[in-house]
Amino acid sequence: MDSPSSPDWAGRLHRVREALDARQLGALVISNGTNISYLTGFAGSAGLLLITPDEARLIVDGRYELAARQGIEAGRVAAVTIGRVEGRYDQALGQTVTWLAPRRVGFEAAHVTVATLGAWQRAASVPEWVPTEHVVERLREVKDAQEISVLRRGGGLISDVAGQLGGFVRSGRTEREVADLIDRAIRAVGFSAPAFDTIVASGPNSARPHARPGDRPLTSGDLVVLDFGGVLDGYCLDLTRMAAVGPISPDAQALFDAVSAAHQAAVESVRPTVETWRVDRAARAVLEARGLGDAFLHSTGHGLGLEVHEAPRVGRADPEAPSVLEAGMVFTIEPGAYLEHVGGVRVEDDVLVTETGAELLTTAPRELIAV
Amino acid sequence: MDSPSSPDWAGRLHRVREALDARQLGALVISNGTNISYLTGFAGSAGLLLITPDEARLIVDGRYELAARQGIEAGRVAAVTIGRVEGRYDQALGQTVTWLAPRRVGFEAAHVTVATLGAWQRAASVPEWVPTEHVVERLREVKDAQEISVLRRGGGLISDVAGQLGGFVRSGRTEREVADLIDRAIRAVGFSAPAFDTIVASGPNSARPHARPGDRPLTSGDLVVLDFGGVLDGYCLDLTRMAAVGPISPDAQALFDAVSAAHQAAVESVRPTVETWRVDRAARAVLEARGLGDAFLHSTGHGLGLEVHEAPRVGRADPEAPSVLEAGMVFTIEPGAYLEHVGGVRVEDDVLVTETGAELLTTAPRELIAV
Repeated sequence: MDSPSSPDWAGRLHRVREALDARQLGALVISNGTNISYLTGFAGSAGLLLITPDEARLIVDGRYELAARQGIEAGRVAAVTIGRVEGRYDQALGQTVTWLAPRRVGFEAAHVTVATLGAWQRAASVPEWVPTEHVVERLREVKDAQEISVLRRGGGLISDVAGQLGGFVRSGRTEREVADLIDRAIRAVGFSAPAFDTIVASGPNSARPHARPGDRPLTSGDLVVLDFGGVLDGYCLDLTRMAAVGPISPDAQALFDAVSAAHQAAVESVRPTVETWRVDRAARAVLEARGLGDAFLHSTGHGLGLEVHEAPRVGRADPEAPSVLEAGMVFTIEPGAYLEHVGGVRVEDDVLVTETGAELLTTAPRELIAV
Repeated sequence: MDSPSSPDWAGRLHRVREALDARQLGALVISNGTNISYLTGFAGSAGLLLITPDEARLIVDGRYELAARQGIEAGRVAAVTIGRVEGRYDQALGQTVTWLAPRRVGFEAAHVTVATLGAWQRAASVPEWVPTEHVVERLREVKDAQEISVLRRGGGLISDVAGQLGGFVRSGRTEREVADLIDRAIRAVGFSAPAFDTIVASGPNSARPHARPGDRPLTSGDLVVLDFGGVLDGYCLDLTRMAAVGPISPDAQALFDAVSAAHQAAVESVRPTVETWRVDRAARAVLEARGLGDAFLHSTGHGLGLEVHEAPRVGRADPEAPSVLEAGMVFTIEPGAYLEHVGGVRVEDDVLVTETGAELLTTAPRELIAV
């Protein structure tokens, strides 16, 4: 195994080949860019990865060929074979697959469009194209030592940004201005970029879970939702804290207290072998008991990793997609409650499932930030 | 027709219904977020738009319902019917479609994955699901008066940013620092955000068309590619200028001159009824004549609009997807040449096809910025 500072590409590829075996596939086409990056370190905006029992071939066009070769030389990209596309990707894939002549070729059904599959089928003489689902996503769900080390470091950094919020939120400043300050802090502490568009939602806007920061100036009596994240070495962190501008109403305070209690209950429910819906239930039960069940408009959390939303989903029970916690999973816990005439509250941390429970990767105080 | 400041949603919806008629569809499901935004102004990260001859129904979950309703009230979203999803989108769509009972339902083959189509087919009792391609994209390709007004204004603003580059590029500054200065300027002139990750590629990095800014300090003798864009009222602008740090080699100067000539030739080739491949050919011919054909690693340009890469593609002839210029199209012209031991050059402007030729939306001087 590589040192913790270098991704374990060989181990990941080995596990994909086990999936090929299990599904009797002669080859698997990986077309999702994040999955390609997870398996090889290559991070272009185009490319296909063809995995067979003997080879991993990265098919890229001229824009990326040199970057891929230099990446391999420098150890930033796994030692794959490079196949250069001269014209269209579907034709390049078709030629390679036709030449390899496997009987069954798997593809990522959740990432290949109906139009693209049609083009591949026209370009390649393959007896059978086999839809697969979540082969690489399942691997990505459980983080290895190197990934955990990055996420733990990132959790500390995003908590550092949260520690600065008291200086950013100020009556009279617009949501956009506060978001800009947060974005600068995200880069200043060491993230390569925000993990998503920072949310600063004040007063009535706080009642919309996915509001975008606008020109509204913060005003006394406002609840302010501050939801932001950062990307560190490709991995995403995600955190939400709440601020109050001046005195807030008793209803707003009660909303904050309820969501905080729901957050606490969810964190305490986390440990291996627990179904993810039980974590959601733990949060939801607290809010329902306070008459806020209908005000909780989303799921309790989502996995974090190379994507800011990935498996596992921590929401209501879904018989078609059961999901059980395992040590090494990393996800958000972010219950919220939104009332049109009171405002909205969300409190969010990132947790790692350990052998015995949960480790909070984000450690900033969760109290309402009073400004 | 609405005033130029408000998008012509009614006209756009009317043209989609003509496409339904032409394809004998009882309904069309729009699942691509940008297409939904083009047709309705709604800009959530989830949602489905079901268009029938009589109705346009936006299916959204609780996170977006209030935002959608408020948007309609405020005139920022078209007057569609709202259908709220309680559980899964595929089931909500299935119920609605089953209830409407059309014989043929179209879907966007380029945006619906094999897995999603499977879920829709399981959820809805519809005799026939019909793949459609580019129904909305074809409409988006030709900009209307309101869109042109936004893009023209944006072209001026991104040129203002280009005018500041001489102050940003400096020997000793890292690529990342220069990119940060550009990103701040993009927001400062009035864009809501950069249109994509800003590229600052210096010295050997300039030879990689899609290099990301890193910690390399700019050094005397460098060619520097500065490629950046901004989003204004949802519309994307995209511009590339070149800088030289101190004296550069005669080979580097020749590379710049060749690409500039290719750029000029491409701009002069633009007018309605011309096939897009002829614009690419015009640029490529200039580079080939100077022995740089193999160094031009990408297409000459791409359409601009709600997405930073959209139709038309301005590249080599593709018999399967012929494309002809029409007045109202907006795209980039960005020839480039990349030589591993000399460096890379790209020069990029945004053009609008007029009745008689091309209008340059980006007007900053194209000369090499000497610092």
